[in-house]
Amino acid sequence: MTDNEPIFDVAQLSHVELFTPKMDESLWFFKELLGLQESSRDGKSVYLRGYEESYHHSLKLTERDQPGMAQMGWRASSKLALDRRVSQIEKLGAGIGWVDTEAGYGPAYEYRTPDGHIQRIFWEVERATIPDSLKTPLINRPQKRPLSGVPVRRLDHVNLMCSDVGPMRRFYQEAMGTRLRETIIAGGGEVEVAAWMSHNNLVHDVAMMRDESGVKGRLHHVAFWYGYPQHLSDAADVFREHNIQIEAGPGKHGITQAAFLYCFEPGGNRVELFGDAGYLIFEPDWKPVVWEEKDLEAGIIWHGSQLPQEFFMVGTPPVPANE
Amino acid sequence: MTDNEPIFDVAQLSHVELFTPKMDESLWFFKELLGLQESSRDGKSVYLRGYEESYHHSLKLTERDQPGMAQMGWRASSKLALDRRVSQIEKLGAGIGWVDTEAGYGPAYEYRTPDGHIQRIFWEVERATIPDSLKTPLINRPQKRPLSGVPVRRLDHVNLMCSDVGPMRRFYQEAMGTRLRETIIAGGGEVEVAAWMSHNNLVHDVAMMRDESGVKGRLHHVAFWYGYPQHLSDAADVFREHNIQIEAGPGKHGITQAAFLYCFEPGGNRVELFGDAGYLIFEPDWKPVVWEEKDLEAGIIWHGSQLPQEFFMVGTPPVPANE
Amino acid sequence: MTDNEPIFDVAQLSHVELFTPKMDESLWFFKELLGLQESSRDGKSVYLRGYEESYHHSLKLTERDQPGMAQMGWRASSKLALDRRVSQIEKLGAGIGWVDTEAGYGPAYEYRTPDGHIQRIFWEVERATIPDSLKTPLINRPQKRPLSGVPVRRLDHVNLMCSDVGPMRRFYQEAMGTRLRETIIAGGGEVEVAAWMSHNNLVHDVAMMRDESGVKGRLHHVAFWYGYPQHLSDAADVFREHNIQIEAGPGKHGITQAAFLYCFEPGGNRVELFGDAGYLIFEPDWKPVVWEEKDLEAGIIWHGSQLPQEFFMVGTPPVPANE
Amino acid sequence: MTDNEPIFDVAQLSHVELFTPKMDESLWFFKELLGLQESSRDGKSVYLRGYEESYHHSLKLTERDQPGMAQMGWRASSKLALDRRVSQIEKLGAGIGWVDTEAGYGPAYEYRTPDGHIQRIFWEVERATIPDSLKTPLINRPQKRPLSGVPVRRLDHVNLMCSDVGPMRRFYQEAMGTRLRETIIAGGGEVEVAAWMSHNNLVHDVAMMRDESGVKGRLHHVAFWYGYPQHLSDAADVFREHNIQIEAGPGKHGITQAAFLYCFEPGGNRVELFGDAGYLIFEPDWKPVVWEEKDLEAGIIWHGSQLPQEFFMVGTPPVPANE
Repeated sequence: MTDNEPIFDVAQLSHVELFTPKMDESLWFFKELLGLQESSRDGKSVYLRGYEESYHHSLKLTERDQPGMAQMGWRASSKLALDRRVSQIEKLGAGIGWVDTEAGYGPAYEYRTPDGHIQRIFWEVERATIPDSLKTPLINRPQKRPLSGVPVRRLDHVNLMCSDVGPMRRFYQEAMGTRLRETIIAGGGEVEVAAWMSHNNLVHDVAMMRDESGVKGRLHHVAFWYGYPQHLSDAADVFREHNIQIEAGPGKHGITQAAFLYCFEPGGNRVELFGDAGYLIFEPDWKPVVWEEKDLEAGIIWHGSQLPQEFFMVGTPPVPANE
Repeated sequence: MTDNEPIFDVAQLSHVELFTPKMDESLWFFKELLGLQESSRDGKSVYLRGYEESYHHSLKLTERDQPGMAQMGWRASSKLALDRRVSQIEKLGAGIGWVDTEAGYGPAYEYRTPDGHIQRIFWEVERATIPDSLKTPLINRPQKRPLSGVPVRRLDHVNLMCSDVGPMRRFYQEAMGTRLRETIIAGGGEVEVAAWMSHNNLVHDVAMMRDESGVKGRLHHVAFWYGYPQHLSDAADVFREHNIQIEAGPGKHGITQAAFLYCFEPGGNRVELFGDAGYLIFEPDWKPVVWEEKDLEAGIIWHGSQLPQEFFMVGTPPVPANE
Repeated sequence: MTDNEPIFDVAQLSHVELFTPKMDESLWFFKELLGLQESSRDGKSVYLRGYEESYHHSLKLTERDQPGMAQMGWRASSKLALDRRVSQIEKLGAGIGWVDTEAGYGPAYEYRTPDGHIQRIFWEVERATIPDSLKTPLINRPQKRPLSGVPVRRLDHVNLMCSDVGPMRRFYQEAMGTRLRETIIAGGGEVEVAAWMSHNNLVHDVAMMRDESGVKGRLHHVAFWYGYPQHLSDAADVFREHNIQIEAGPGKHGITQAAFLYCFEPGGNRVELFGDAGYLIFEPDWKPVVWEEKDLEAGIIWHGSQLPQEFFMVGTPPVPANE
Repeated sequence: MTDNEPIFDVAQLSHVELFTPKMDESLWFFKELLGLQESSRDGKSVYLRGYEESYHHSLKLTERDQPGMAQMGWRASSKLALDRRVSQIEKLGAGIGWVDTEAGYGPAYEYRTPDGHIQRIFWEVERATIPDSLKTPLINRPQKRPLSGVPVRRLDHVNLMCSDVGPMRRFYQEAMGTRLRETIIAGGGEVEVAAWMSHNNLVHDVAMMRDESGVKGRLHHVAFWYGYPQHLSDAADVFREHNIQIEAGPGKHGITQAAFLYCFEPGGNRVELFGDAGYLIFEPDWKPVVWEEKDLEAGIIWHGSQLPQEFFMVGTPPVPANE
């Protein structure tokens, strides 16, 4: 393999761990409204998964005084791919070390993004145990579609706020071989404001955007996937009637062409529901789409709901009042 | 790279060339009803593309007395990946040789599947030239959405009929590193009846099914992508009113979870319109979903339109009457 | 008012009472899968309503050894309209008499169709009592959208099987002022096979079709309304995984342009889920659409799922085996 | 018939005539983007209809220096109903007189709303002549679905701006028997700000809203119907790429539960595309839904796109600059 060849060592975003100061309410939201399935509990944590996910969990909720992201995990494409990535992370000086005791997956290497977000990468995974009562004749689906709320199918992506997009974007490229799909460049070509990146055919499985607060390492949002726009309308209906704060949507971004709905789960973390497949990227020499300020009006919102100014400011954990 | 690692040398299905005995009517179908854009003409051939495809063409229509597939083309992930695949094809004794003169892409290596379907693989591509009048502020889309008919977005997959599925499936695995996603095994585990395979996160960019006629190397169908189920309903509306024969659909397969609509274009080739994303596969160690006879009722049709018996018999070119 | 003027004395289909031999399973179906709300219970009966219905109930389930329809009820447009219709029913010799003791509505006049289906018409209604916890800020909606299953919004129509369509159609026209919207005439214009009729802008709030069994007064199906085609796909998903027998659909009828899904509730009655608004009729001098045998292929199914032969044979109660 | 009974003398909104200062561009918009069909031309006017409308036209476009509404027309339920309404209009002193020479319908009685909007009511209509090439096997549809743009099915409603909502609302009730469905009452119950009214099962076929400019008799918007939410997304896609100004949407109003998309046609008139059926009203004693200021946030927008402040200010014709 030469330096010029694309890297395929990371297969997918596998899970995210969120902190919540309101565990009961957060669980109610994710289980009753979004139909996530509980796989197990452990101390102050609950492990959840979508009904079309075969792994033990894609969402770990952990009780804590402030919302935010504890860590997120990537599954490597192979055991060797994991080794190559760990070697590269260590070469970049971003490594923390091996974690051996987590439910749901085998030895994971923990590391930091330049902004401090904790990441894990691993190869071995544990599959969810599906009780017979949830088995489905649709055997490419791990279990029956839940009867609760408007059930999501799987975790889609994470969007990270960061003090400086450039180093974040380069770190993903260099450490993980992540491909840049779309980017916003402001200031006459000087300032990277946001980047959408992926390890596969999605337009993004990770995104990053500039945090104007100057605080480092915060979470912007976690996204779960429906694949059908009607479900965004259904979910919005349910959210309105159950006092879940909708921040924006349903609407359609120009960037990524995503049909979106943004809300805040009761613990305070922003959650996106994703209503279609956007577009998929198959071109191996994809030239990143560069949105300049003149194009941004169409890029931010192609049609439908606008984004409030807070969308670009609010992340978790919240910025302390005295900052 | 060891033998145990997945191969990522093929990036995507890039184009298909169909024969049509009724060029004018076929062009009317693909351009007026499906909104394909004409890139160029050349002798007896017309080159077409979907409005979200950046390459010169994804469909080449060539006039001939019988319908059928002339060849289909794969884009490699890199120049080196192309070299590796050609080397492997030659090692398997399936090679034909280099083709240098085709519009839309650079040097292509031509080879045969075990059943005789002509395939091409290449690295270099030519992008479509988009006139200014078709430029769109949605800059991740190559051109404006057409105003004609119910426009498709891109080529999705090809389904090949074959005399024996096992050798076809193994050839793709060995020659291309194609991953087996779902399969039908009949006869108590003895007979592979159909296989759905992909080089990326799609459940399939190529499929193959047993041709009961015993004829080799035929085409079952070519599929184009909408991504929204409503468009299948819209297309069916249009097809009914314009005497396009609908074979089946809209409906939903269990296998691949695809929202489908099958019709015959005026030249006689079966065309599928694909109304959602089905499900996407991110697991690097995906265990192929095996449909046995007992599961097939749910697998063939999960809900909606049934498939007629002809679906499993008819391909192009037609079987000569005296066979 | 002259004889030539249209009659607007019947406002709407208000409720239907079904018999079920499996009360628990039927309740589970209507409440957990279709999201109907329980208003009250009374002896062997349970009263249910959709979340966008303000009346006490639109569905009454009553335990009995055989499925079938006990009675269905129409709400008059005014007190005087009720009087006029009762007078006309009595003139036609179809009356049974006044029913005063039913939950949910005031004095109802009971009568028989020519085939013996029990009908009721009334003016006074009781509104459902909505607990505060179900109140919604969407104040044109009686209560919150349920979180269970794929919830239906309201009762839409009833389809009656009958030994002879002509007298049934004429009875509705003469007794109720019901308007004929679409009809199937077979046998070279001699035999009315089915009729779709309404008292308002719907293509049908009552339909009738010929019962080839020769049995009189049976039910073909009761339909509930979603208004969005995606919900038919969602409901079909749920039905497949919970062993609810889908008879046909999702698909689209030519006649009425309805997006349909037919299933059997556990008690044995056929239930239709209605996925769009079809088309609405506003023309006051609507000329009934006549489907002859040559047009029927498009009329029965415009696209999608076909109807099995049983669709035209099976009703409730079932035909005794010795007939 | 007593005073207490509902009046059913008006069957439907039949047409609207719009002025446009840019006839060619307006025609391009309505024909190429919305798929309206041209029925005939006459001097400075062009008559258009939707593909599921059987009358000669539902939209008349007339060239003039300023946009705005020339007149709108109602079809009576019968000849006698027309006579009753004319008698009542004259009793209210709102009559102008009979118009006998218009294409598409018979003698029409012209009258004024309290704010001066010109209205017509008539009984006789002329059906569109459909060429054989446009005939469809879906015989409840007047003609084939067009292949141009995202075709609308029919005219849905008109929204009128007015200097004072109360007198407008009462005039419709008294002159036409129009039923009040929903209303906004501000100022602690003192000021009617807007009203949604209908003559049939729609939540509104006419609406009226307070014009803060103080100018009388302006048009807010004309709405055409799709019935499927996806078509709003498709239309928005097309509008963005063809420089049609989208004012708001797609989104969902709480009031009327309508899935909406508002744009300005090139002549300057606001046009709404209506993406579902909202909800339908069958209750004969419907109690108008009253939105007070405290409920309005949910009422104006239930979810999705917000309305800009201009939505409440801009109508046609525009307010002269010196006012």
